[in-house]
Formats: sequence, C-alpha cells, structure tokens
Amino acid sequence: MFYHDSKLQYKVRVEKPNPAFANMLQQAIGGIEGEIRVCLQYLFQAWGARGPKKYRDMLMETGTEEMAHIEMLATAVALNLEGAPVSLQEEMANDSIIGAVMGGMNPRHVISSGLCAMAVDSNGVPFNGSWVVGSGNLAADMYANVMAESTGRVLATRLWQATDDPGMKDFLSFLIARDTMHQNQWLAVLEELGDLEGMHPIPNSFPQDKEQQEYSYSFISTHVEGKPATDGRWTQGPSMDGKSEFTYDRAQPVGGEPNLGKADPRAFGQKEQL
Amino acid sequence: MFYHDSKLQYKVRVEKPNPAFANMLQQAIGGIEGEIRVCLQYLFQAWGARGPKKYRDMLMETGTEEMAHIEMLATAVALNLEGAPVSLQEEMANDSIIGAVMGGMNPRHVISSGLCAMAVDSNGVPFNGSWVVGSGNLAADMYANVMAESTGRVLATRLWQATDDPGMKDFLSFLIARDTMHQNQWLAVLEELGDLEGMHPIPNSFPQDKEQQEYSYSFISTHVEGKPATDGRWTQGPSMDGKSEFTYDRAQPVGGEPNLGKADPRAFGQKEQL
Amino acid sequence: MFYHDSKLQYKVRVEKPNPAFANMLQQAIGGIEGEIRVCLQYLFQAWGARGPKKYRDMLMETGTEEMAHIEMLATAVALNLEGAPVSLQEEMANDSIIGAVMGGMNPRHVISSGLCAMAVDSNGVPFNGSWVVGSGNLAADMYANVMAESTGRVLATRLWQATDDPGMKDFLSFLIARDTMHQNQWLAVLEELGDLEGMHPIPNSFPQDKEQQEYSYSFISTHVEGKPATDGRWTQGPSMDGKSEFTYDRAQPVGGEPNLGKADPRAFGQKEQL
Amino acid sequence: MFYHDSKLQYKVRVEKPNPAFANMLQQAIGGIEGEIRVCLQYLFQAWGARGPKKYRDMLMETGTEEMAHIEMLATAVALNLEGAPVSLQEEMANDSIIGAVMGGMNPRHVISSGLCAMAVDSNGVPFNGSWVVGSGNLAADMYANVMAESTGRVLATRLWQATDDPGMKDFLSFLIARDTMHQNQWLAVLEELGDLEGMHPIPNSFPQDKEQQEYSYSFISTHVEGKPATDGRWTQGPSMDGKSEFTYDRAQPVGGEPNLGKADPRAFGQKEQL
Amino acid sequence: MFYHDSKLQYKVRVEKPNPAFANMLQQAIGGIEGEIRVCLQYLFQAWGARGPKKYRDMLMETGTEEMAHIEMLATAVALNLEGAPVSLQEEMANDSIIGAVMGGMNPRHVISSGLCAMAVDSNGVPFNGSWVVGSGNLAADMYANVMAESTGRVLATRLWQATDDPGMKDFLSFLIARDTMHQNQWLAVLEELGDLEGMHPIPNSFPQDKEQQEYSYSFISTHVEGKPATDGRWTQGPSMDGKSEFTYDRAQPVGGEPNLGKADPRAFGQKEQL
Amino acid sequence: MFYHDSKLQYKVRVEKPNPAFANMLQQAIGGIEGEIRVCLQYLFQAWGARGPKKYRDMLMETGTEEMAHIEMLATAVALNLEGAPVSLQEEMANDSIIGAVMGGMNPRHVISSGLCAMAVDSNGVPFNGSWVVGSGNLAADMYANVMAESTGRVLATRLWQATDDPGMKDFLSFLIARDTMHQNQWLAVLEELGDLEGMHPIPNSFPQDKEQQEYSYSFISTHVEGKPATDGRWTQGPSMDGKSEFTYDRAQPVGGEPNLGKADPRAFGQKEQL
Repeated sequence: MFYHDSKLQYKVRVEKPNPAFANMLQQAIGGIEGEIRVCLQYLFQAWGARGPKKYRDMLMETGTEEMAHIEMLATAVALNLEGAPVSLQEEMANDSIIGAVMGGMNPRHVISSGLCAMAVDSNGVPFNGSWVVGSGNLAADMYANVMAESTGRVLATRLWQATDDPGMKDFLSFLIARDTMHQNQWLAVLEELGDLEGMHPIPNSFPQDKEQQEYSYSFISTHVEGKPATDGRWTQGPSMDGKSEFTYDRAQPVGGEPNLGKADPRAFGQKEQL
Repeated sequence: MFYHDSKLQYKVRVEKPNPAFANMLQQAIGGIEGEIRVCLQYLFQAWGARGPKKYRDMLMETGTEEMAHIEMLATAVALNLEGAPVSLQEEMANDSIIGAVMGGMNPRHVISSGLCAMAVDSNGVPFNGSWVVGSGNLAADMYANVMAESTGRVLATRLWQATDDPGMKDFLSFLIARDTMHQNQWLAVLEELGDLEGMHPIPNSFPQDKEQQEYSYSFISTHVEGKPATDGRWTQGPSMDGKSEFTYDRAQPVGGEPNLGKADPRAFGQKEQL
Repeated sequence: MFYHDSKLQYKVRVEKPNPAFANMLQQAIGGIEGEIRVCLQYLFQAWGARGPKKYRDMLMETGTEEMAHIEMLATAVALNLEGAPVSLQEEMANDSIIGAVMGGMNPRHVISSGLCAMAVDSNGVPFNGSWVVGSGNLAADMYANVMAESTGRVLATRLWQATDDPGMKDFLSFLIARDTMHQNQWLAVLEELGDLEGMHPIPNSFPQDKEQQEYSYSFISTHVEGKPATDGRWTQGPSMDGKSEFTYDRAQPVGGEPNLGKADPRAFGQKEQL
Repeated sequence: MFYHDSKLQYKVRVEKPNPAFANMLQQAIGGIEGEIRVCLQYLFQAWGARGPKKYRDMLMETGTEEMAHIEMLATAVALNLEGAPVSLQEEMANDSIIGAVMGGMNPRHVISSGLCAMAVDSNGVPFNGSWVVGSGNLAADMYANVMAESTGRVLATRLWQATDDPGMKDFLSFLIARDTMHQNQWLAVLEELGDLEGMHPIPNSFPQDKEQQEYSYSFISTHVEGKPATDGRWTQGPSMDGKSEFTYDRAQPVGGEPNLGKADPRAFGQKEQL
Repeated sequence: MFYHDSKLQYKVRVEKPNPAFANMLQQAIGGIEGEIRVCLQYLFQAWGARGPKKYRDMLMETGTEEMAHIEMLATAVALNLEGAPVSLQEEMANDSIIGAVMGGMNPRHVISSGLCAMAVDSNGVPFNGSWVVGSGNLAADMYANVMAESTGRVLATRLWQATDDPGMKDFLSFLIARDTMHQNQWLAVLEELGDLEGMHPIPNSFPQDKEQQEYSYSFISTHVEGKPATDGRWTQGPSMDGKSEFTYDRAQPVGGEPNLGKADPRAFGQKEQL
Repeated sequence: MFYHDSKLQYKVRVEKPNPAFANMLQQAIGGIEGEIRVCLQYLFQAWGARGPKKYRDMLMETGTEEMAHIEMLATAVALNLEGAPVSLQEEMANDSIIGAVMGGMNPRHVISSGLCAMAVDSNGVPFNGSWVVGSGNLAADMYANVMAESTGRVLATRLWQATDDPGMKDFLSFLIARDTMHQNQWLAVLEELGDLEGMHPIPNSFPQDKEQQEYSYSFISTHVEGKPATDGRWTQGPSMDGKSEFTYDRAQPVGGEPNLGKADPRAFGQKEQL
C-alpha cells in the first residue's frame, strides 16, 4: 500500500519561467525515457515478482521513489509555464524572444491543461503502457531497467544542458545523481544473478541443447560483398557467456524458397489468385 | 543499400496448421519483443552512428539479418493459417477443438488479411515506432539491444513450448540460437566500451561533479516503517561502476511544500481558483 | 439516417489568416476535448440506447449537430492556412513574425494535408476511438457528456482568447454558447434520472448490500503523518447520495503481504526464480 | 513524496484461478475506466492545482489510494494466472472448459508477461496517457472524476457478476464500495463549488456576455422532418444553471456556403484544382 | 450542415444473436477498412476541397451516407449481443458452443460497453484518426478512396461468408452493393481527371523536368543474383502514364558511403564516440 | 533473405544543415505517407502472396529498394541536425533565424535521439503498424500501393519546395523520380489484372448476384433539399466496371426505426433503463 506527504523529495525552483523548457521537461514525465515509465515498470515487476522476495521488496522501494520524481517534474513544468503567452497577438510574435518561446511551446499547455503538466512527451504524444516492461524473467527485466536508467540519464544530462536556469540545473543534477544510483542498483542485481556466465543466455532455464547450437555463437554477415570480418570482439574469442567461441560466417539462405500456393477461395482474393 | 534473394534464411515447415499458434507468432513479428522492432532499432542505430565506424558496420549486419527473421515468421504465420475456419457456423463451434482454435485465433487473420501475417502483436495491437530505441549514446543503445534480445529469447522459448509441431519447434530453435548469439554480441560491445567501470554511469561524457553526488550511490528506502536494509548487494560494498560505496538511507522530503499560487485568470479556471 | 445541405450552421470568417491559430483549432477538431469525440460519443450512445426512447432521440439530435461543428472548424482551419509559408527560406525566417508563425504551425498542414484540416489534435496526435465513451449506463454516460462539454467550453474560451481576429472571435462565441446549452442539456437528463439521491451510486441497479459497506462513505487518508482531516465537505455530514454519513479514516493495510511463490518453470524465468 | 509498505489495502484471494477472468481484470488496471487512469488523473490534478490548497491535498490522498488499487488488481491477475495452460496441445483444447478458458485468455499473459499483470486493458490495448484529464479548471476536472468513478463502478459490478469465485467477489465488493465513496467525494467538491447555479456554465470565469447568447439555451433539433419537441426537461423550463429558459428550435444553416477557392499552386494539388 | 431521421437506411435483422459475430462486425465500424474511416475521410476531403465545386458536393453526399452505414453496423452489433453470456461460470464454458462463442467475443462488449458497439476494430484497437486521408491532391485522394472501398468490400464479403444468419447476410449484401457503387464512383472521378495519362505521375502539377528522369521509368532490381527480368508489364513497353518506356536495371549504390563523423559532445554520447 | 552493402542508393548532401527541415523529412520516414510504411507494406504483401509467383517476386524487389530509401532519409535527417542548437539560451532565441529554427525543430531530436533520425513523423507521432496494408486481395493491395506512392510523391514535391538546399533538392528529385516509377509499376499490375472491367468490383471472386443489385450502381444523394444531380460522370452513363449503368437516386430510409428494447439487467445500466 502507499502513503504520501505534502513535500517534495528535492527542491524545485525556477527563476526565469520558460514554456519551451516546460515542453522539454515533458519528455522526462511522459516519454519512453521518462519517469511514469520507470515508476510503473518497477512497480509492475514488483507486483508480479515470483521467486526471491528481496527483489520484490527492492523494486517496490524504487518504484515508489519514482512517483516522487514525476511529482517534482510536474511541479517544474507548472512553474516554467507561469506567465506564458496565451495569445497569438502580433505584437508579441514581433518580439523575437517571445516568438521563439511560442514556437518551442506546446500549445496544449495553454489550451488543454491550463498551464499544467500532462501525461505526454515533448511532442505531445501520450504516455503508452506498452513501454512498461515486465517479462516474468528477472534478468531480462533488470536489463530493461538498466536501459531505462541509461536513456533516462542521457535525457536528464541533455535537459541540464538545455537550460541556464540555476534552479532547474540544481534540480536536474539531483535527478542525474539518482539515475547514477539506479544504474548501479540494477547492475548489482545482475551481479547477484551470476554475471554474464551465470545469467546468459537469458532465460537461463531453457535447456541450450534444444537450440540449433551451430548458430548460437556465429556472427552472421549479410554484407553482399563478403567482406572480411571487422575486428570486433564479437567475431572471435570466447563468447561473453563463457559457453563457446565466437565465429564469423557469411549469411546463407538454407531455407529454400517459400511457396504458399494458391489463395483460399474463401478469402475472396482476385480470381487470378485462385 | 539492400539486396535480397528469394530464399529463407532457415527452413519453415508446418505439419499441422494451427491458427491460434499463428496468432501467438504475431508477437514475435509486431510485438514490442518482436523482430520488426529489433530490425528497425539496429538499422536506425546504424544510420545515426557517429564515432567508431565498426559499430555502424556491425549494426547494419544484424539489422539486415533481422529482416530475414520477420520474413520467416510471416511465412510461418501464413502456413499456420492454411485451412483456418472462416465462418462461425454452429456445427464447427460444436467441435471443441475447432471451438478452442476459433477462440484463440485473431479474427482479423480471416477478415482483414485473408490468412496472412500482419504488422501487429498477439493482441492485434499495431507495431509502434516508439519502441525503436536509438539514443545517440552507444552504451545506452547496447543495453537496449541486450534487453531486446533477452525479452526476445524469453518470448521465443515460450512459443517453442506452446507448440508441439515439429517444424515449428525446429524453426523456433533456430531463432532461439540467434538470440543467444545476439545477446552475446551486444555484450561484446559493452566489454569493448570499458565494462562497468569504464562505461557507467551512462553517459560517461557528463562530468560527475555536476551531479548532486551525495545522492549518487545511496539506496533510498521509501518504506513507511523504516525497515532495516534488505541484504542486497545494492546497499553496501563498492558501487558497480567502481566509483564509490553503496549506502542505505531513508527517504527524506527535503524539497518543501510546493505552492503554485492562484490560477492565471487567462487560463479560465473556475472563479474560486483565481 | 443522415442528410446534409451545403451551408454552414454559423458563419466562419477569417480576416487575417494565421497558421499557428489553425494548429490550435485542431484541438477542437481531433483532440480529446474536441468535436469528433462528442459527435461520435453522442451517436454511439444513441445507437446503443436501451430503455426510454426519448434519450436515444435526443442523443441523435445533438450528435448530428456536432457534425456541423466539425465542419465549421475544418473550414476555419483551411481559411487560417490561406497563404501560409510553405518553405523554410532564410529571408522568411528572418522576419520575426513569420518566424514565430512557422514555429507555431504544424508542418503537416503544409506537407501532408496541403493546407487543410486533419483528424488530429494540436500536437498532431491522431483522434483516438478510445475517447468515445458509451458505457451502457445512462447516468454514467451523461456525466461523460457533461465532462466533455465542460472541458470543451474551457478549450473554446481559451481559443477565443488566443485570437484577436474578429471573425474567429465571433465564430468561437457561437461554439461557446452551444457548449453552455449542451452542459445544461445533459444536466437536465441527470435531473430526470433522479438527481444525486436517485442516481448514485452509479449504477443504481447494483444492490448496495453486496458492497463492503463499511468502506462506502469513508474518506481514507493516506497521509503518512496522520494529519487531521482537512475541513472539506467530503469528511463529514450526509453523503451526497443521501444514503449515509461521510467519515474520516486513516489508511490501513488490512490485506496482508502478497506472496506469489516460486515462478512456474514453464514460463522460463531465470533459474533463481524457480 | 510517497511511501509504501509491503501489505495490500484489502485482502485478495483466488480460490479457482481463471485466466479468462485475469484478462477481464486487466480492464480495471489499464483500461480507460481503470485504476492507472484515476491514479494518474488525481495526482496530475493535484500537482497542477492552483487556488484553494485543500483540493490539492485531497486529490493527493485519493490519488495515492488508487496506487494501492492497481497493486491489488495486479496481484489478482497474477493469482488468476496460476497454473494457466501454456501450450496449445490438442488434448487440452479437446477439453471444452480448458478450450473456453484458452479462448478467453490473453495469450500475452503467457508469452509476454510470464503469468503477470500488464499495463493494458482487456483487449491488450496499452494504457494511454491521453486519458489522464487535467484541464486546469477545477469544476471540469471534478466532472471528469465523477465520470471516471461512475464508469469505474459500472465496470467493477460487471466484473463482480462475471466471477463466482468467493475471494474475487469479496475483493470486488471492496472496490465497488470505494467507488461509491469516490463518486460522493467529487460530488461534495462540486457542491462546495456552488452547485449547478454557481458552477455553470463551466468555466464560470468567462463572461457570458461574450458568448452568442441567443444560442445558449436553445435545444436545436436536426430532425429532417421537423418533429415536435420530445417532452424532455431540456426543451422547456428554467435552464439547469438558473440563468435562462430552455427553448426548442429547428436547426438553421445561417452560415452560408463555404468556398475555399482554387488550390494554392505551392501545395501541388492536381492541375484541375489550380 | 447535417440532419437526421430516426430510421435506418436499410433493414438490420438478426435471427440468432452471435456475440462472436458482433466482434467481427466491429472491424467494419472502427477498423482501418471500416465505415468511420470512410465517413470522416470523405467529409474531411469535402471540407478541405479547393478547385471544382462538384467534387466537394459529391464527397459531402457520400460522406453523409457513410454515417448511416456506421449506424446500421452499430445496430447490428447491439442485436448480436442480445443475451450474450456475461459470466464465466463453469457450466457455461462446459457447453462447447457457448465456450466457442465466449472465446470469440470481445470481453469489453460485456464489461465496458454493456452490450453495445464501440469505436474499435475486431481486436479492440481504437479507431485512429491517422487513417483519415486527405492530401489536398484530388487524384491521390480518389485513389485513397478506391482503395478504402476495395478493402472495405473485401471485408464485407468475408463477413458475409462468416455468418449464416439470413438477416445479417441480407444486410451485408446491401453494404457490398454500396461498395460496388462507391468503387465505381471514385473511378469515375479519376476518369474525369484525365485517366492514367492525364493524371500521372501524381501530382501532375509538379514539373517533371525537375525530377531525376533517368530513374523515373526504371524497374530497379535488388535481387542479389542479378536475375533476368521477370516478364511483368512493368519492365518493358510504354509506361502507364504514356510518358516514357519502362526499362529494367540492376540496383547500383551510387551514393557512396555515408560518414556522420564524430558525435557532437553536447549530445552526451559515450566518450568513445567523441 | 536480405543483404546489404555500406553505400547509399543515391547521394545525400546537405550544404546548410537545417533542423527544421530535418523535422519535415521525418514525415517521409515515419509518417503514413512515408518509406517505412511502403517498405513494410510491399514486403508483407510479398510474404503473404498466394497465386502467381511473379507478383511476389516483384513486391520483394521494390520492398527491398524502399529499405534503401529509409536509409537515405535517415542520413539526410542526421546531416540536417549537425550543429543544431541544443540549449534555450536567450541570446540564441534573440536571433530571429535561430529562433525560427528552434520553433520548427523537434526537441526530441536533441533530447531523445541525440541528433539522429527517429521512427516518427513530423509531429513526433510514432510509426504505426496499422498503416501496413495487406488484404490478401491483389487488386485491393495494388490500389493501396498506388495510393501510397501518390501521397508519397505529393509529400516529396512539397519537401522539395520547402528547401533551397541544392543537395537536398537533388536528393528529393531522385525520390520523386522513383515515386513516378512506382506509381507506374503498380498501375501496370492493375492492367495485367484486367483493368477496370476485369478487376471491379473488387474482390471479383465474389458472385455479384449475392449483392443487393438494385443499389449497386446508384448514386444516392443525401442532400436534404433533393437537389438535382450534379453533372458528374458518376450519375449517368455506363458504370466504370462496364457491368451496368449509373443512376441517380435520393436517399430513402427503408430500414425502419431500430428498437433495442430494455437494457439487460445483467449489464448494470440505471434502473430507469431496465
């Protein structure tokens, strides 16, 4: 169950409200790299957790923390929208700074939400539940979480750079720090799950003798000229999961030519297909 | 640029067509764990690659291979739909096997595509371009790729288990093997990028002294009862990126209470808000 | 069945075409507060209406009127796009008014629709059928309609304020008036359905003795500090449906700790979960 | 900020797991009438609240409670998926009960989530952020909330009826009770905001003399035969907002015929349009 | 402007309600081949029509007719849902016909809409405004319309075949006839626009000497083995627009190798990319 | 199966990078008129092709070519984003050209993709798999393809006009030429399929005596005033499929008034509906 208080996890100050920056911050709220996604992702993973209880507990902790991050970002958006231009009058557009701001704003911040944050990204595309990854496989989920915190921290550093408002820079430097921790946190679980050799290939509960093992560690090149292998780590040496050696092979179409035959008359293609 | 031939990368046989299994295979085509996603993801990452050329080259290779995977899966769907029931006549429904098949089918395989594969998942939800992750940060992208191949292999093993058709099991054991390789492949890049200590926190080009470092390696517990730390690796010992020590702290609302003041009259709230 | 003539319900004049305002108007066409939504919502409610025929009849009337509103808005968009800038030449951008207009435009009004309205909102997000609410419960649907006309009138007043074009202001003052009527109209149905005491809780056909009545009129506070009740009407006095008294209670987790046990081996989690 | 504990708000028991019912429960999680929607809707309204502080506080309370509802529903889904069929073997389909269950299941509960809840509705359509309504107008938002709790309670009663599992019926009777309270709660705010006469037309801060008042209280009939008025409350008597009288009028196209002229050559229509 | 009466354009009878068929009919309402799409498509094309007025007038006529088609289909869905199973009780599932029906139903027809039609397709995917094509080019739009009526008639014939209810077969044979007319109707406009030679390439207002004409009539083969040309009409003889001759050529990568250089440090890639 | 090389199909040069034009180019990548759509559409049609093999072969060729078009466009986007403004500093906004560019940019090109192309359109709306049309009917699919290449060429000509960069104009003139060919190519298939008389009504495999033939060639006018027929080709003369004569008729509601009766008590409407 969940509880709240009336305070923010960290301070959120805006010295010079900037509606174009409000729009950029929306990416960190409702975007695929954003906080609604990680919040729901960690909580859904917790709620569906089977196996060792400690992972469920930990996912609950951090999922709950992310709620507070959405709250701070929504506050930051509202503060950046204070005093935003709400009409398209010519004299305003004629001022090039206001004109630039108006171009970078989301008009729906004026006409739909009345100067508040929305559950959308920086293009106004709504948050989408398909982004909430929970596979039932703990290791796959941890990679989804590392990935989310990596793209999330990249986003936060770019937002940090886009603004010169000291309050916003301070706030973002807090989010960036939390992303540092969360990257480390999910990596710590991966270590507990046995690192590369213990974990991979994911899922490690599927018996590898059931896969077509001659293709399991081969880098297949589709290059039409049959170029020699680039010298990446992925074409030679032991595989990362320690179970075999990488090889390099050219792509071969061993599957033959497919032939679906004539069309089923009951599907009402054209007569020529029957 | 791209080329093709008329053959499949691996053989695709179906002994007993099963339209309910055709529907399940759609997840591997148009789902978030599916092949359209990885195909476009690797290619968009290649097309936007800046920095060392070898990663661009390698992403092109595997993105192109994934095209062939979509092709095989589409063929498998079409073959599983051969002879599918196309009407709801009572005598058919009365046969419990046919009835079960009809329940598990996607009706759009009959009425929309005429017994062919579609660019949708197992719920008929269309493929969505937001799933194509390319962040401009190579390490973040590699984690996105490991994650995609991990959930992808989990999906493929579940499909393998769902069918007892020998042709389909054989085909899926090929896809499972390729997912093994691709997990290893992206992990090999991560090794080249410096492993945990060299790579993290991602992006490693952001100067860490700009983040609020007192929060960078702290596991923050939001548990209302202030429970002692669970004994996970993430609350003690060196951080995974080797840059600090994990600590355990209780959540504190240091941000004070937000106050957005009265509503802007120009936003037409209710009079009571002004 | 439906009929049309070639005229508009109200006059639509634009003195100074403004492509940025054309973009704002799209919210009233294809947005969640827009006219496609109310049009389809009222018509779907009519087409599925069971029970007293007069509500079906009335929903048909207003659903049909809303078609005419979409038509006028689409005309207003096209007129606002007359003479819009169609290229990105530097000399144009150098004019700050044109630059501001270009920033506020939807580029798809030039490159996709050729200076015509589209079935999208002000962010270019397409109209979505999920917004069409018809629950089969007349009272719930009427609240959905009051809500749609309330957010719709808020939107229209903000659009009215955003423009200083006399033709557009006149046109919007007509839409605002119709929203006034439609709010009143759906409220009139709610009165007929018995006002708060007769109608609530919705659905009133579910026997209340089947619900966990000790929780039915309790304001549950999740505040972590157990703050005393705020003095809102919702914590004391008779409930709005006249069936009980409001109480104030602190949240209690009476449900115990969930335990989903080990993972099903058939779901291919990691070995550690089995 | 937010906190959690490890217990559920109410008990969630499942005696006979039923994967088809698990699928139905998803509507209450990720559907437009579901709990993710109300949770985010109340919290976003709180985070953007301007004006009297007590509404912000109250929205935080109930938004936080809804988190716990998602949690219980996710648990209920996972429990209903225990022992679900994971393959399409003929002998299983041949059992008509299993066959029916398989037809009613979401295959992604097996192949994507590994027997856990997802952020989708009963058709597998992902949760969509556009459903999170926060208009910046308190009265409009309260109607959105009444509407959400009304369709939500209708949904919960139908789920209650769809199952004969005593644990599920008990759990749903709790949710139904909370929906009763929440309907009453938002209605209490509406009373505080002045009831119909004080509140309407929403927004009440827009001066009504700016609207085309001759159309503000007229029921406009589009019926092609000019049928006499149906005897609804909405065609006669005082308007619900107490500001005028309802009238009944036939639709008239006073707007003239629109003429957009020739196509702009720069838009590359066909020559015939230029 | 629009008007209505209370009758249907054609009779809609259902002798044996079938909720699985109700679900199939949804494709013709809210699917990409469905009637909401053509209705809005023709009306948006009309509302944005520039150039000869007669096309606008005609689009209005048929767009309005399509409204009546949605109405009939929504009625057919509601009638097919009469008496539908609303619970998952075992004794029902044990009857294989009921079991099959339950598998083929959309559960949201019970729990969300209360046995009414919704604005979704046969997978429950909501109608999407992106499907409403209006390009501002009359010829392109007419092809979009021919295509919509072609896939629409294919859908209707498959629905006709899926049912053995005489009322439904009769109703669908009406829709199929209207699709015949509408295919012919849009083709008639294409004839007026000058047939292939006058119309193509679309847009015919772009001067062809501005295109890279050496590639304008060449069939480019990407086959990796350089197979000889298949003997299709598209590799030889006069081009369909009468402006040149078809040729057959092998794909050549004349564009050189792209090189995006190093990553911009301001974009926070990994150090290795800079 | 598929192969690639490292070169582009045609040269892609950008002299003056323009991030606003980068955004416009996205429509040709991820928009409904864009190249991901045609690529997947042709390939899915190929993979599901039944009947004459030559159409499958040809669809594979052109679907593969379209991959190379996405590649070039993605390269063009990346090149146009070189040196783009990544912060909102006032001095930049004060320069009206930079201000205009910032208004026309997609902020996600900076904060999400790090100056690379994404799988979205010019509004940032993600590519959607529903746009991939494959109906199982060859003629319907060819019309879908003509339509895609027609709206695609209209888009490309507008992009050509929007830029004055010589490199971009040259590149677009190549794409325009390929669209010319592809329009002709699909029209050539339509000729092979028997032209209008042989092909229509689509599907030509449905026996026309099963449709309500009195409505098959009638232009039905819904105009409320019963205006005389406009003089279009579609109201008189032989039908385009050569099978009948066009007639002109006024719309008649022959279907009677629908009556769905009382609501099913199990659906929990309001008592008033039962």
